[in-house]
Amino acid sequence: MTTEKIDNISVATKASVYFDGKCISHGITFADGTKKSVGVILPASLTFSTGAPEIMECVAGACEYKLAGSDAWVKSTAGEKFSIPGNSKFDIRVESAEGYHYICHFG
Amino acid sequence: MTTEKIDNISVATKASVYFDGKCISHGITFADGTKKSVGVILPASLTFSTGAPEIMECVAGACEYKLAGSDAWVKSTAGEKFSIPGNSKFDIRVESAEGYHYICHFG
Repeated sequence: MTTEKIDNISVATKASVYFDGKCISHGITFADGTKKSVGVILPASLTFSTGAPEIMECVAGACEYKLAGSDAWVKSTAGEKFSIPGNSKFDIRVESAEGYHYICHFG
Repeated sequence: MTTEKIDNISVATKASVYFDGKCISHGITFADGTKKSVGVILPASLTFSTGAPEIMECVAGACEYKLAGSDAWVKSTAGEKFSIPGNSKFDIRVESAEGYHYICHFG
């Protein structure tokens, strides 16, 4: 099931712009202080690094990702999630013209 | 004063992507049903059309805009707003590498 909206949060009005605009996200904060982000990756091949562990939840579009130490590209589409360990990295490629729309959960 | 965050709202998790990703926004909804959006325009020259009247509030970066029927380019920076009538259009150009980060208020 796809998470179409997130209720009762605060949103940071300034976007975070990565990779010359190929990835754009807005930070959100829950009442209990939990932080996540909502964003989109436009068609591109990118490598991200993690600090805290992350769970990437796809809400629209699709990507393929490859975790550090793996040779396997895995597809992730709307309603699906994948986990990345902390202090690691992952490759992501987006071919869908729609982009890959996501919620990033930390920790 | 710059609006750095907006509290107690719902955010649409899927971004709206305009002009091949030069403008990306997320819709937000207040408890009373009021809808706005938060977004960013990356360096580009674009023309937008309005349905409802809009107020564009800059939260970071800068743009120059020109309303329909005007020959004047006007600069708008963080903390400043400008209004566009309904059923109209406006040109916007962003030269700041940071982009033009905004809240769009409708009606």
